[in-house]
Amino acid sequence: MPKALKIAYLGPAGTFTELAALQLGSENELVPLASVTETIDAVLAGSVDRAVVPIENSLEGGVSATSDALAVTPGVQIFGEYLVPVKFDLMAKPGKKLSEIKDVLTHPVAYAQSRKWLEKNLTSHTHIPAASTAAAAKALADGANCDAVIAATAAAKLYGLEILASDIGENKEAQTRFVEIGKSAKPQPKTGADKTSVIVELPDDRPGGLLEMLEQFAARGVNLSRIESRPVGDRFGRYRFNIDAEGHIEDEAIAEALMGLHRFSPKVIYLGSYAKADKSASEHEGNNTNGSYHAAKKWLDDLRG
Amino acid sequence: MPKALKIAYLGPAGTFTELAALQLGSENELVPLASVTETIDAVLAGSVDRAVVPIENSLEGGVSATSDALAVTPGVQIFGEYLVPVKFDLMAKPGKKLSEIKDVLTHPVAYAQSRKWLEKNLTSHTHIPAASTAAAAKALADGANCDAVIAATAAAKLYGLEILASDIGENKEAQTRFVEIGKSAKPQPKTGADKTSVIVELPDDRPGGLLEMLEQFAARGVNLSRIESRPVGDRFGRYRFNIDAEGHIEDEAIAEALMGLHRFSPKVIYLGSYAKADKSASEHEGNNTNGSYHAAKKWLDDLRG
Amino acid sequence: MPKALKIAYLGPAGTFTELAALQLGSENELVPLASVTETIDAVLAGSVDRAVVPIENSLEGGVSATSDALAVTPGVQIFGEYLVPVKFDLMAKPGKKLSEIKDVLTHPVAYAQSRKWLEKNLTSHTHIPAASTAAAAKALADGANCDAVIAATAAAKLYGLEILASDIGENKEAQTRFVEIGKSAKPQPKTGADKTSVIVELPDDRPGGLLEMLEQFAARGVNLSRIESRPVGDRFGRYRFNIDAEGHIEDEAIAEALMGLHRFSPKVIYLGSYAKADKSASEHEGNNTNGSYHAAKKWLDDLRG
Amino acid sequence: MPKALKIAYLGPAGTFTELAALQLGSENELVPLASVTETIDAVLAGSVDRAVVPIENSLEGGVSATSDALAVTPGVQIFGEYLVPVKFDLMAKPGKKLSEIKDVLTHPVAYAQSRKWLEKNLTSHTHIPAASTAAAAKALADGANCDAVIAATAAAKLYGLEILASDIGENKEAQTRFVEIGKSAKPQPKTGADKTSVIVELPDDRPGGLLEMLEQFAARGVNLSRIESRPVGDRFGRYRFNIDAEGHIEDEAIAEALMGLHRFSPKVIYLGSYAKADKSASEHEGNNTNGSYHAAKKWLDDLRG
Repeated sequence: MPKALKIAYLGPAGTFTELAALQLGSENELVPLASVTETIDAVLAGSVDRAVVPIENSLEGGVSATSDALAVTPGVQIFGEYLVPVKFDLMAKPGKKLSEIKDVLTHPVAYAQSRKWLEKNLTSHTHIPAASTAAAAKALADGANCDAVIAATAAAKLYGLEILASDIGENKEAQTRFVEIGKSAKPQPKTGADKTSVIVELPDDRPGGLLEMLEQFAARGVNLSRIESRPVGDRFGRYRFNIDAEGHIEDEAIAEALMGLHRFSPKVIYLGSYAKADKSASEHEGNNTNGSYHAAKKWLDDLRG
Repeated sequence: MPKALKIAYLGPAGTFTELAALQLGSENELVPLASVTETIDAVLAGSVDRAVVPIENSLEGGVSATSDALAVTPGVQIFGEYLVPVKFDLMAKPGKKLSEIKDVLTHPVAYAQSRKWLEKNLTSHTHIPAASTAAAAKALADGANCDAVIAATAAAKLYGLEILASDIGENKEAQTRFVEIGKSAKPQPKTGADKTSVIVELPDDRPGGLLEMLEQFAARGVNLSRIESRPVGDRFGRYRFNIDAEGHIEDEAIAEALMGLHRFSPKVIYLGSYAKADKSASEHEGNNTNGSYHAAKKWLDDLRG
Repeated sequence: MPKALKIAYLGPAGTFTELAALQLGSENELVPLASVTETIDAVLAGSVDRAVVPIENSLEGGVSATSDALAVTPGVQIFGEYLVPVKFDLMAKPGKKLSEIKDVLTHPVAYAQSRKWLEKNLTSHTHIPAASTAAAAKALADGANCDAVIAATAAAKLYGLEILASDIGENKEAQTRFVEIGKSAKPQPKTGADKTSVIVELPDDRPGGLLEMLEQFAARGVNLSRIESRPVGDRFGRYRFNIDAEGHIEDEAIAEALMGLHRFSPKVIYLGSYAKADKSASEHEGNNTNGSYHAAKKWLDDLRG
Repeated sequence: MPKALKIAYLGPAGTFTELAALQLGSENELVPLASVTETIDAVLAGSVDRAVVPIENSLEGGVSATSDALAVTPGVQIFGEYLVPVKFDLMAKPGKKLSEIKDVLTHPVAYAQSRKWLEKNLTSHTHIPAASTAAAAKALADGANCDAVIAATAAAKLYGLEILASDIGENKEAQTRFVEIGKSAKPQPKTGADKTSVIVELPDDRPGGLLEMLEQFAARGVNLSRIESRPVGDRFGRYRFNIDAEGHIEDEAIAEALMGLHRFSPKVIYLGSYAKADKSASEHEGNNTNGSYHAAKKWLDDLRG
């Protein structure tokens, strides 16, 4: 990425999302916005080049706001993914002591992760929910009626807070996955370590619809690294599935599976093919390499005469 | 239910959950609590007989707090389900006019549903997220720094607010589904219009695990009315599935599918069999009635001699 | 077929195969040969244009000699199929009376079909097996040591025999299906009422191989009108499957399924696409018309940019 | 088998079937009969204790006469299986020289196996088909108009012939599998190295019927060592499948799969559970041991309360 980009992210500053956005390059200009929808709108309006938003948390699952925005907003595509380790610190205004903490402001996910530590170290605290960990830090700095917040380390410096306890989350491997969103365009080039994201609506609740959909992948040896259900929203029992499949749209196995989904599903949204953050090779089970596909095509062409 | 019960629900008063809890009978004593976890803890402690909590919203999908609490809390079971239509009103302190409204406090789901109405009628408003619609109403009554809230009709009377606009949500069919939770016990009797809820963890991300799991149901003609993925939480790519299957544990098709899941899955949690809120018959595809099962069993016993 | 062809068939004259060969046109020259292998060898040598051989009998199943010859003989292809009703008559040398019949010479299939009639009308007869019904008739004419034969009506005239009882077979709907074999070439043009024949070897007895193979068809909505197992022949438990699928190689659903089999199977033999004898339309389940395939391909090409 | 049995077999003496029948014990009385049907009739009539008939040949596949007789004859069951290596010798009347051989009488399977040898060593021979290799040997001894026969070694001694060339078959691993048939009774005891044979008719040609049937086995981790299609016989496109599954009816995985087939199929015939000739352990994929089944059943019973 030679030229500096303007990148919207789900703010405020100090969130894990800012850490993800920084991974796109230090030369870029970062623009914190208040909601996932606003960052995507900014992309569509052309006021920014890219948006960086959370898509999935290893602790809490899919970020519905992002999944649902991608499902209903045409014209955008995913161009990359970034992982950020999730580390929670307890922080307060300078001078406050741990023994004085009663009301703890933070996002419910951060609270759930820190609960064991809190129950041991702050036996009589109360949890006040916040919209995000950074919003909690900002609110405390702005004079909110609470004693401490749980937030990412970066928030302390940004909002002039003091860290009382570091890395108090239970799962030390926790990460959040972020995606880089831009206007729909030609997909990123194939790297051999790629994933392809789609959203697939199931046909009108016929029994076995999900099984049939999964067989579109299985018949081409394509593994799925993520499958997350979301309601279509009109009535109970109707789902769309957010799927990350191993491989790139330039892999014939993926291309054929995509075309199979297009025939099978009343609505399938292609969200892009892009390099995997963990850089592990994307391979397909069985004889489903491009070489095997091309050999099969040549065989067919010969038969057709 | 002849005798009055003590029923905890996800409060505060004025939420849709209270409307669901009232469906268990007007003779019961209702106890609003601050979180799903607290209501379940109250059930386990014996301080209440039942808890009523939201499980799924036709607009927004599964309620993660409930799904995840059921996944990690042994000793509880679902005994019934209740549907409540979701209707949103805009309300403010008495005397406030619609033209004066700027800052709107409400839960993000309520905000998303009301957004079209707001964009047309309050073009320059700002959204402030709240933990629930009732919490928003309570906060406004308590003097929070905002101009209006979006909440269920009942909240207006409860918190002394005035309704400025009624039923401003986009989807007029929207409903929330609630479950009645009690201590694990013998399941409710079979009615012929039943569902069975389970949480199934997939075996260590082997490709095709989800397909195999679905075949445990398909091989017995069992349809699923709900399938919702949730992360196991230890690392990306590991899922458990919250499933509602048509039928009762006393249906042999369900019993055999459950035993199949028990063998297949590293962890399967039975959450109960109970009457469906919509009272539609629960049937199984193919020759999978109890009669067919018993005939097959008799045939087998004869063969075994 | 404007120009007269030279057509080998599984003789001798008077068999059902001759009746099938006659369906290719009365202007052709028919050449009876002694075995399926000889007719196919004649095609390959160029001494005849086509071979007509039985492939399947509605009573007795696949004709192994033909299936196996097609499996091991490269360079040939199926160009058409023909149905012949199977009608069996009891015939003897002129003057012989029904009451005098003891030893009945015929092919085991003809005998099995006529057994009920024989048990009622010739209670103490004996069955002597013959290689074919026509061979039996010829043998009787040549002086074989038996009293009567069961054969097709045409055999009586050809070998100077007298029909003692007509149409004595049990299943009055019985038919034999014959195929027209020629040198490998461009398949017959698509008619909309076509079938495609293949022979597919399963991968080295991995469990579920047959299931996977069937899914190659199911994932493209292709129904099978015939599936017949044959041993590969090297050891027990290894099979190849003779398959007739609905549709033509110019149908994209068939083309993609064929390519899927090419990748999946260690050995797949394309035996041709040709008009169905019963002229019923060949359609594919779900959205698998050529129109749907082309729309999906256009969608993919647009995505690839 | 302490007490001598009377055992019918598909004769005449000198066939491979006699070698199989001898494996049941040298103390038994062997009775050669002319057809599979006659041996089974003898079992049903009680004139013999057991029948030994060929069921499958590693070269040529299923023996239709046996498969079909088992499919339509109620009251019988398989009690064991026996393997016999298939070795073909060329034999003639004493004094005949190899260079004098022109007409070779034998069964078509034996001929196909010996063809390469014959083409090299008897370049201008002619094949005359016989009903069995032993029938060929007997016919030559009785004065049939031919120069040599191809048959099992034992036939030479039995019919006073001289072996001109030994073991002339192409596939040196070739074997035939024979089954021991008796009146329906309690299955043989479980040995841990068992197979279970069934015949399953598919439901009225609905697409995917075979796939569904195979899933009844797959859902219980049961592998199939043999699957052979046979026409039901009323019209084209209707099949029944002869299946050998790994395991014993006392294995819960097999028992549940059998009951699944009973519900799924319009007609399923249990042919018995018996020790495998190759004595390899019969195991089921996944957690499908009897222990896992019993644990699942106990779990279910506890849930049902």
